[in-house]
Amino acid sequence: MTIHVPSDPAADARLLADFAALSQIGATPAGGVERQAGTAEDGQARAWLTGWLTERGFAVSCDRIGNQFGLLELVPGAPYVLAGSHLDSQPRGGRFDGAYGVLAAAHAADRLRRHYQESGDTPRFNPGVVNWFNEEGCRFKPSMMGSGVFTGALSLDTARETADTAGTTTVDALARIGGLGDTDVFGTADANGGGRQVNSYAEIHIEQGRELDKAGLPLGLVDATWAANKYEISVLGAQAHTGATAMADRQDALYGAALAVVAARELAERFGDQLHTSCGQLTVYPNSPVVVAREVHLHLDLRSPSDELLAEADDLLRQQFAEIEVKADVRIERRFAHTWLGQAYPPAGVALAAAVAADLEVASMRVKTRAGHDSTNMKNIVPTVMLFIPSVDGISHAEAEFTRDEDLCTGVDVLTETLARMLEGALTPET
Amino acid sequence: MTIHVPSDPAADARLLADFAALSQIGATPAGGVERQAGTAEDGQARAWLTGWLTERGFAVSCDRIGNQFGLLELVPGAPYVLAGSHLDSQPRGGRFDGAYGVLAAAHAADRLRRHYQESGDTPRFNPGVVNWFNEEGCRFKPSMMGSGVFTGALSLDTARETADTAGTTTVDALARIGGLGDTDVFGTADANGGGRQVNSYAEIHIEQGRELDKAGLPLGLVDATWAANKYEISVLGAQAHTGATAMADRQDALYGAALAVVAARELAERFGDQLHTSCGQLTVYPNSPVVVAREVHLHLDLRSPSDELLAEADDLLRQQFAEIEVKADVRIERRFAHTWLGQAYPPAGVALAAAVAADLEVASMRVKTRAGHDSTNMKNIVPTVMLFIPSVDGISHAEAEFTRDEDLCTGVDVLTETLARMLEGALTPET
Repeated sequence: MTIHVPSDPAADARLLADFAALSQIGATPAGGVERQAGTAEDGQARAWLTGWLTERGFAVSCDRIGNQFGLLELVPGAPYVLAGSHLDSQPRGGRFDGAYGVLAAAHAADRLRRHYQESGDTPRFNPGVVNWFNEEGCRFKPSMMGSGVFTGALSLDTARETADTAGTTTVDALARIGGLGDTDVFGTADANGGGRQVNSYAEIHIEQGRELDKAGLPLGLVDATWAANKYEISVLGAQAHTGATAMADRQDALYGAALAVVAARELAERFGDQLHTSCGQLTVYPNSPVVVAREVHLHLDLRSPSDELLAEADDLLRQQFAEIEVKADVRIERRFAHTWLGQAYPPAGVALAAAVAADLEVASMRVKTRAGHDSTNMKNIVPTVMLFIPSVDGISHAEAEFTRDEDLCTGVDVLTETLARMLEGALTPET
Repeated sequence: MTIHVPSDPAADARLLADFAALSQIGATPAGGVERQAGTAEDGQARAWLTGWLTERGFAVSCDRIGNQFGLLELVPGAPYVLAGSHLDSQPRGGRFDGAYGVLAAAHAADRLRRHYQESGDTPRFNPGVVNWFNEEGCRFKPSMMGSGVFTGALSLDTARETADTAGTTTVDALARIGGLGDTDVFGTADANGGGRQVNSYAEIHIEQGRELDKAGLPLGLVDATWAANKYEISVLGAQAHTGATAMADRQDALYGAALAVVAARELAERFGDQLHTSCGQLTVYPNSPVVVAREVHLHLDLRSPSDELLAEADDLLRQQFAEIEVKADVRIERRFAHTWLGQAYPPAGVALAAAVAADLEVASMRVKTRAGHDSTNMKNIVPTVMLFIPSVDGISHAEAEFTRDEDLCTGVDVLTETLARMLEGALTPET
């Protein structure tokens, strides 16, 4: 067992300094960032990354949905081992979510660049860094858009035509910040792709839960995703006067929507830790203080480690909606906005990460991810490794999100060694 | 008993033609109008009214909060009997609410102008038409703003500084549509007022309830208002990830708000027809599909014919909010945005309207108003008459609002005769 790049206090210091610099872009007063996909702040973060990678010899390019790649062709024509995450954030989001993963990938790839240049060794594959476009899905839905297009889970045309509430499309937003390319960078050369191939993928991310924090461990080896159903719900009532209209005559869309929000929450309580339910987005029409709402749109999320439990919850929710329709005299339309089954991460990737952690003497445990990540898409097309580092109190999508410096540094050490082994074929069956 | 201006098919036809023309301004596809206060459409309606009144010899002017007056000085220096309502509407509002009352007042005043000019008689007071600014309170809060300022219930400075959600103040909006005057039109001459005095006030409006429609009667004599409490509520939670955050760790502001909406509705069910409760406006922050809300603002309405019952409901709501704070782990702040006690309309005004209805052989009944009206303010400073005409199925603040032509015409006949008697001193005690 070889450790390619031993841990190094100077490298740690550079990582933390770069993270502090990156966190200034779109910084919010309480220590978070606001860099929604395709905004000026997202553009600044992307430009910062381009500068960082270019200075170190990586060739930077974007594909037709704004995924940003930094590629280092050490072996002419060889496939790439990609590592990355996303630089976009939620509104008043945390500074670690996504950004840490991109920076960790950049530092890991750069350490390996030095290693190969200084040692004279040659890996089997080429290293690449990726910043996936619009992982967050707040401004443009769905989430994980860039990796969704890259892996074929979402059509390029659909993604390019998606507009925010102001009517701006992803393509327009990307063009404004110089983030739109005119080829696919990867894929067959004759279909807009650059002829490059992906060998495998690695991602590191803060946990967004408190399993690692509770266990006091610095590393999580992600072995499965939770399943998720995301619904777009429309509650349809009839506009009326709030003061004058008799209660019995009302078809109050907001009352119906409130019952739906409460019903979803109570569903979670019924299943204990095995079901998460949420409504984070709810919009009222016309939203006047003296008008009973005619229509409410809301976005509901159900997530579970069990596909069967999720199906049962879906069915219970459907029944409750039928009761709400009668109780509030409204009509409820629901459609799936995004749905995925619980899926295992490739066992070979989990085993590789476990071996690296053991060799580096980093204590780890297996965890599941409740949130979706770009690796959720990537694992469906190539061998994939997904790593978590702890997040204090599991705080996420909030300015108070926090991970300790030593955990940030340990994560990059593990990612660097994992990538080194992937570059040498650890996840590639001998042909 | 004299009938000053008998009913007249030609006058009815002119009224209906004018109402059709006015209803074209800001018309919506399903037969409503959208003319929120201070918008371009409100400006067009105001300009239309200015033209109509000016052509007929009324002098039109606006005060410093945009109330629009059309005055006819038949008796130099004498006080005015004002009649009117409001031309602004809700978003996708009905075409009758307010606009009918302004047009009815204009037609009634004009019929009396012809009557006095043709008969050579002279009334004791002068007729005036008024279009109160921002009765609806959807774009700028509170509702009944113009009449509130006029009667001293609301300070002029507060009203002038009130901004909409885009930050535009009433003064800026009014200036843009040419609706802002630089004096008070009425009041003592040395304090910005024009030296004019108001003798009394009359208003006619669609019922916004179904009492008249159910009873099959064309006229309601309003003898009291319901009491109302309007609250601005803030529910304060903590931003988190919808998928990853454990349910027990959540401080979900939208869950708390949904419980509050449901609690308010259930409160109404407890008191039967004696309490109306509503939430028409609710705004979520940050309103991202994958973020547990940190804050929700909502506007709650409680209304009752009984002050005591309203106080009891207020107290119950306070208790329920305390329970919701524990259940959803949120904080709820509430403050009164607007509140009024149930109040009688002046009995002399009700008696006058009843006498007119009897003399004109128009069947009527006494009704209470659940909604606030500009007359709710005016009755506190001068003798006031408030009349209702039926609204089919009680539909209000909605495009489907509808009143039959014959009821529109009958209303103007009753208003005309009521005004005639007020102009001759019917509501003025002999000195």
